Amino acid sequence: MAKLVYSFADGKAEGRTAMKDVLGGKGANLAEMTNLGIPVPAGFTISTRACNQYIEQGYRIPKELETQVGRALRKLERAQGRKFGDVKNPLLVSVRSGAKFSMPGMMDTILNLGLNDRAVKGLAAGSGNARFAYDSYRRFIQMYGDVVLEIPKHEFESRLAKMKKARRAASDTDLAASDLERLCEQFKAVVKKASGRAFPQDPTKQLWGSIAAVFRSWNNDRAKRYRREYGIADNLGTGVNVQAMVFGNLGDDCATGVAFTRNPATGANELYGEYLLNAQGEDVVAGIRTPLPISKSAATDGTVSLEEVMPEAYRELQRIRRTLERHYRDMQDVEFTIERGKLYMLQTRTGKRTGVAALNIAHDLNRARTINREEAVRRVEPDMLVQLLAPIFDQSDLDKARRSGRVVARGLPAGPGAANGCIAFDAESAEQMAAAGRSVLLVRSETSPEDIGGMVASAGILTTRGGMTSHAAVVARGMGKPCIVGADGMQVDEGAGKLRLQGRTLKKGDELSIDGTTGEVILGHLDPRPSEIQQVLVDESLPAERSPLFRRFRDLMRWADSIRTLKVRTNADTPHDSSVARAFGAQGIGLCRTEHMFFGEDRILAVRKMILAETLAERRKALKQLLPMQRKDFDGIFKAMDGLPVTVRLLDPPLHEFLPTSREQFRVIAKETGHSPKSVQEKVDSLQEANPMLGHRGCRLGLTFPEIYEMQVQAIMEAACARKKRGTRVHPEIMIPLVGTTEEYRQLEQRVRVVADAVCKKRGQRVRYHVGTMIEVPRACLVADQIAGQAEFFSFGTNDLTQMTYGYSRDDIGKFLPEYLEQRILEADPFQTVDQDGVGELIRGAVDKGRQANDRLKIGVCGEHGGDPRSVGFFHVAGVDYVSCSPFRVPVARLAAAHAALHGTDGGSGTA
Amino acid sequence: MAKLVYSFADGKAEGRTAMKDVLGGKGANLAEMTNLGIPVPAGFTISTRACNQYIEQGYRIPKELETQVGRALRKLERAQGRKFGDVKNPLLVSVRSGAKFSMPGMMDTILNLGLNDRAVKGLAAGSGNARFAYDSYRRFIQMYGDVVLEIPKHEFESRLAKMKKARRAASDTDLAASDLERLCEQFKAVVKKASGRAFPQDPTKQLWGSIAAVFRSWNNDRAKRYRREYGIADNLGTGVNVQAMVFGNLGDDCATGVAFTRNPATGANELYGEYLLNAQGEDVVAGIRTPLPISKSAATDGTVSLEEVMPEAYRELQRIRRTLERHYRDMQDVEFTIERGKLYMLQTRTGKRTGVAALNIAHDLNRARTINREEAVRRVEPDMLVQLLAPIFDQSDLDKARRSGRVVARGLPAGPGAANGCIAFDAESAEQMAAAGRSVLLVRSETSPEDIGGMVASAGILTTRGGMTSHAAVVARGMGKPCIVGADGMQVDEGAGKLRLQGRTLKKGDELSIDGTTGEVILGHLDPRPSEIQQVLVDESLPAERSPLFRRFRDLMRWADSIRTLKVRTNADTPHDSSVARAFGAQGIGLCRTEHMFFGEDRILAVRKMILAETLAERRKALKQLLPMQRKDFDGIFKAMDGLPVTVRLLDPPLHEFLPTSREQFRVIAKETGHSPKSVQEKVDSLQEANPMLGHRGCRLGLTFPEIYEMQVQAIMEAACARKKRGTRVHPEIMIPLVGTTEEYRQLEQRVRVVADAVCKKRGQRVRYHVGTMIEVPRACLVADQIAGQAEFFSFGTNDLTQMTYGYSRDDIGKFLPEYLEQRILEADPFQTVDQDGVGELIRGAVDKGRQANDRLKIGVCGEHGGDPRSVGFFHVAGVDYVSCSPFRVPVARLAAAHAALHGTDGGSGTA
Repeated sequence: MAKLVYSFADGKAEGRTAMKDVLGGKGANLAEMTNLGIPVPAGFTISTRACNQYIEQGYRIPKELETQVGRALRKLERAQGRKFGDVKNPLLVSVRSGAKFSMPGMMDTILNLGLNDRAVKGLAAGSGNARFAYDSYRRFIQMYGDVVLEIPKHEFESRLAKMKKARRAASDTDLAASDLERLCEQFKAVVKKASGRAFPQDPTKQLWGSIAAVFRSWNNDRAKRYRREYGIADNLGTGVNVQAMVFGNLGDDCATGVAFTRNPATGANELYGEYLLNAQGEDVVAGIRTPLPISKSAATDGTVSLEEVMPEAYRELQRIRRTLERHYRDMQDVEFTIERGKLYMLQTRTGKRTGVAALNIAHDLNRARTINREEAVRRVEPDMLVQLLAPIFDQSDLDKARRSGRVVARGLPAGPGAANGCIAFDAESAEQMAAAGRSVLLVRSETSPEDIGGMVASAGILTTRGGMTSHAAVVARGMGKPCIVGADGMQVDEGAGKLRLQGRTLKKGDELSIDGTTGEVILGHLDPRPSEIQQVLVDESLPAERSPLFRRFRDLMRWADSIRTLKVRTNADTPHDSSVARAFGAQGIGLCRTEHMFFGEDRILAVRKMILAETLAERRKALKQLLPMQRKDFDGIFKAMDGLPVTVRLLDPPLHEFLPTSREQFRVIAKETGHSPKSVQEKVDSLQEANPMLGHRGCRLGLTFPEIYEMQVQAIMEAACARKKRGTRVHPEIMIPLVGTTEEYRQLEQRVRVVADAVCKKRGQRVRYHVGTMIEVPRACLVADQIAGQAEFFSFGTNDLTQMTYGYSRDDIGKFLPEYLEQRILEADPFQTVDQDGVGELIRGAVDKGRQANDRLKIGVCGEHGGDPRSVGFFHVAGVDYVSCSPFRVPVARLAAAHAALHGTDGGSGTA
Repeated sequence: MAKLVYSFADGKAEGRTAMKDVLGGKGANLAEMTNLGIPVPAGFTISTRACNQYIEQGYRIPKELETQVGRALRKLERAQGRKFGDVKNPLLVSVRSGAKFSMPGMMDTILNLGLNDRAVKGLAAGSGNARFAYDSYRRFIQMYGDVVLEIPKHEFESRLAKMKKARRAASDTDLAASDLERLCEQFKAVVKKASGRAFPQDPTKQLWGSIAAVFRSWNNDRAKRYRREYGIADNLGTGVNVQAMVFGNLGDDCATGVAFTRNPATGANELYGEYLLNAQGEDVVAGIRTPLPISKSAATDGTVSLEEVMPEAYRELQRIRRTLERHYRDMQDVEFTIERGKLYMLQTRTGKRTGVAALNIAHDLNRARTINREEAVRRVEPDMLVQLLAPIFDQSDLDKARRSGRVVARGLPAGPGAANGCIAFDAESAEQMAAAGRSVLLVRSETSPEDIGGMVASAGILTTRGGMTSHAAVVARGMGKPCIVGADGMQVDEGAGKLRLQGRTLKKGDELSIDGTTGEVILGHLDPRPSEIQQVLVDESLPAERSPLFRRFRDLMRWADSIRTLKVRTNADTPHDSSVARAFGAQGIGLCRTEHMFFGEDRILAVRKMILAETLAERRKALKQLLPMQRKDFDGIFKAMDGLPVTVRLLDPPLHEFLPTSREQFRVIAKETGHSPKSVQEKVDSLQEANPMLGHRGCRLGLTFPEIYEMQVQAIMEAACARKKRGTRVHPEIMIPLVGTTEEYRQLEQRVRVVADAVCKKRGQRVRYHVGTMIEVPRACLVADQIAGQAEFFSFGTNDLTQMTYGYSRDDIGKFLPEYLEQRILEADPFQTVDQDGVGELIRGAVDKGRQANDRLKIGVCGEHGGDPRSVGFFHVAGVDYVSCSPFRVPVARLAAAHAALHGTDGGSGTA
């Protein structure tokens, strides 16, 4: 006969924290607190097994459970000295769900269970407080009606509002006992009408109705969806906690509140929370009354803190805070109620926190020898570092803006952080305005590579089209710039230089702020703060010794580095980016996109001449102009990456990305090349493609126009030779993009080596270089063994691989991705987090095939996923050697790699 | 001690046909003929094993081979009564390569080996014919120089031409002995100069030089490439045939020729071939002299047939023809030489033939009980049926056009067959001209779905852009229309209504002819013939009993059907196409593309209103207009396919494919919908995509605009119910396109069933229908087990699957595919023949996963590959249930499926 019910009372509990499987999180912690001697109202927890039995037996309460609950209830009655259903001095209980993992989508709480038309009178008489008794009863009827009988909440709320209006009561507490009594009658009528039956008067019936409702809630749609999203197994079941009521609403010597054992925003080691006098639990979070600060130090503007109004209970809460922290070794988030001056704890769990707080808390706990370094590393979620690295708005400023209606649009939070500035509708204006010393927001329907200059010059980027991996989003994240894409309800008229939103029209130069962490667009100016980490590492405007936050960050990163096995490189295209990434700990360049160098004002003309060349001679001439420019870039990058590998990808995008679009540009090219503007236009037209992403690009260009790659290889190797001569340790890795067949690789590798060897010979330098390929076409994964027989390294281009595996164009996905995420067709944007089932299957297969064919094969990942923690976890398990990501993501990836190593081989997909 | 040399002489040979592995094809057949008592010059064959030993031992002649060749040579000397290297009566030999599989890329023949400065004199004296002796010697020097010493041919040819010019000789035979003697001197000087050594005088050295050259040729680039292309193993090696010379150039009682044992163009059971008097073998094929017909019946215009000039030898040849056919049970292609009236056979092999000939020969041989039905089926290559089904030009007309310079351009032969007509540059003109009773050629830079009407109205299609799977190519093949795409050296100026080519300008209405089998564009009119099969089956203009060819075709197809296990369905979008396909033997519709119905003049407006709707109500209104039209189409299709399954694919392409493009069209839409032309234009712009192939299409549309699929399902099921009521046996299969995730399928399937069941209920009909999905996104293959858990059928959309697996846009591949094929980066156009390594790996995996998850899963293939014989072989092995292809490809697929079944499980990739 399995035990299905676990009691706790008077400092002794049958359960403990480690029994979350059986008791759910809430029940396990209630038991633990009881055993710790913390005052917890007595009660019992029904095991998750009972829930599973209930479901398996066709939604019927197991006989055995009835027996055990009856026994536990009698025990509870004895402990409390009151009887369930007693008319004079009734035992009231709360019933609350609690699964192993916290599931916000599920049902919550039923309070005051045990009241009925007769008991409420007994309660009034016993407490000497009729108002309290009827207030408790009306709350119970409402919660039971909502949770158990599934009657829409507004049926109750509208009647409460009407009553308040009739009595001109500002708050619930202004209603008299008689008002509440009348409300109880009205509520019971609502129940009768909606459910067809009278409100149940038998407390035992009430109890079983509530328990069954909690069991059923395990399989409601929200809960199932939530489990699917967070990878929680369907067979865990939920626990049910039945506890004697304690009352925060008995009068002004009563209160209820929530608190954190440390400040969840900063991590400061202080009690932090809010409370309400004369209230029941849900009032604090419901937002009907404004809660007050617990600590005196947090009280302002004449608000009265708990510390002041109930010093004894406050001291008790402080004691419990210390007990809990010592016991749980982490910040706790607690709920409490004070009944007639006596403090009761109703819940404890690990508290959510900001990135700064997470770092500070983990560091402090390690310093206090509460947790070791591995545990400290585990305590900081990699994504939290993004908050640490991004400039942000003050929360209070943002709240104020929301309340005052200044938040005028929302979009996808593509680049975290805060920015504000004057609107510029094109890159040129952005650069001019920035040059004039103004902070600029670049606002466009979408951005293109030609906008790079303007993006560099801007404080933030806002687009009305595109998704989380659109050009704007990717480049902005790469630059560490705040960015919102696909902002709804805004129209950019770039021609007219106007932005229309909510009936307003903004023009060039008008001020706007964006919060790239929340996706909010705010009218006017809001001041952002740059992150301290950036000030120390990149701007070097703040000395490390003056930033405790930075020093803690540095410690954490060192600990992470000592744990991880996966290397982290960066995607960088310029000497400056390379230096930034190195400062952030990059162990080399995993992806240097040569074409990003093509957009500079000084070179785009030469690039265009090269593309529009009618003859090989013309093309060679244009390439000759480009050669010294490319060489110079590589020189700077090799210098910045002294001693580290640098993977250079040869030209990848379709040529028409570089082409002129305006008549004026046609004219310039025509003049330069001696062709007619019309023939230039025709050539440009002939290069347009129906699906450029699947068109004439990457190694396909390299094979049809060999002279382009030849120039690039020459530039790389000449720079490498020159650098080596000056003592730099150069490790060039030449990467051939978009390979799908072995023959493509074989032919191009041969040509690369011919040129590279010729340069070395001519310069008299022996530079060791490697040749490899990007694996970004599904076919390359499928024939990876063939390719690995030839290549020295693989680098997964997960962006394109995702595009082709799903058949999603990154530029067009904005048309359906939002709906796909909302309808849960996709669990995540596959361009942000690698799709383990599909794309991942290809990657696993390619790694296995590649290593089997070539055991010296080096395997990396470039592409946005290299900076996504969940993806990094996957790559660690898949067995690649390194990931590569944008400079500002390098610390995130380092920490994620450490987490992956700590997770061992479970892939990090578990939810904790 | 392995046997490396196999002799044949005087009716006895050590080898036989079955030893092709060891002797190569030529050697094995020489042995076989010898054993059959056919006069074959004595000689010996060096085994392919010797070739392999030579290569393995670092290109050195194995000792053992020297011994065995020496022995065989002495045997040959005894048989011929002449000595190798003898000064008076020298034994001369030919040396020829011969691998197991015929490899045209390899070296060919060295004749007259054994001659030197002294032996030539002996030969002159012995034969009493100095001219013959020096002619033989100069030929030998030239061939040896070319083949063994790798001296460019033109070094010799230019000197021969000069000599002929100096002597005013029209033909080689007009040169005197002294001229030829002088040529020998000149040729030897060429050899000395080019190779640095004198021409070898020692016959043994000559022999070993030649043998080694043949061995080496096995590994030359052409041979290796050829083997790669045809899947021939690299370790087979080549045989070497050394044979006593017989001379066709001893005088006018000598001749040499090639012949087929049946007519290779028609299959008629008659000796068919050509000969030259007083000539050596290579003269017949070299085209220097025009050969004459062998049979009197083929002689015209005063040419003299062999039958007339050497009746005895002719009769002997007829005898041998019968012997060979009886023995080999197939048409043979033979080489022969007549020396002083005596006939010698130099080679026999299976002869190449046209489609008509293949059918007739196979059928005749089966009737004659020479081969059984399986063998008859095996004898006709599936692709040959295309020739049988396509209208064609007469070969002589085409030759005449080539000679007279009327062939003005060449392109990719996208739709086989011949067509001619007046040029139309747009669909509308094409329809008008056709309506006026003129034959029309639609000439465009490329076609789009809007051109369908014009394509239907045209006799053929010619485009200057696009590849073998461009819109024009696919649609034309689907219609069975001749088509050339990507024609080089032509510019279409659609605006001006002009076609420029080779300095000429053609305008609308000018006449042009195209041969879609060869890819040639011919100026002016050339009369095509429609195929008989089509006349009987489709046009019904010819009764079956009056077409023996058709009856044979019908027999063959019946035999094929009794062998194959793979079903063949068709891709058809209209009742007419469905009927045609059924006539061609389709077992259902594998792909009915509903959107092809959207382009009719009567419905495109409603489609546009649907797409451009600003509200759901507007969209529903437009869909309501479309509903009866779609229903009517389905009604006709179900009727045509009575008793057979019909797979209907719900809307697939991106919406903007249907959108208006001209201002006039914007105006019409604006008027119809009450919006402004500008807002229509804006909406159209907003629907444009960067990569529509990877954009908002297929089930992504179905999920974001559910009302579209709902209308389509309603139309399908209403038509099915109505048809069933009238007694038609309907089997609708509703196919959801572009599924990449299980959730997409799950949600859409649910909606499909809701609508379908509602229709059935309303109509009071129980129509059994199936719901399944197209597998065309790589990810769908990777998660096929998940999807198969829900779907009732899979249909591989191999076109899109190929696009995404390779990352090739079908619309843009023309920019690099020609170079890729030329550089052998790709062995075939992957849109024509399925890529077994990459795409095939996905398909195999998906079939396995799908069947494991759902053992009742029906699996098919739609997409162009379903009509490609090599691909059909692959699909048979992969284990799908059916392929589906365009109506005119159905017979091809049926035959290919039979071949696949006969091949068993080897995938049909072998070369025979």
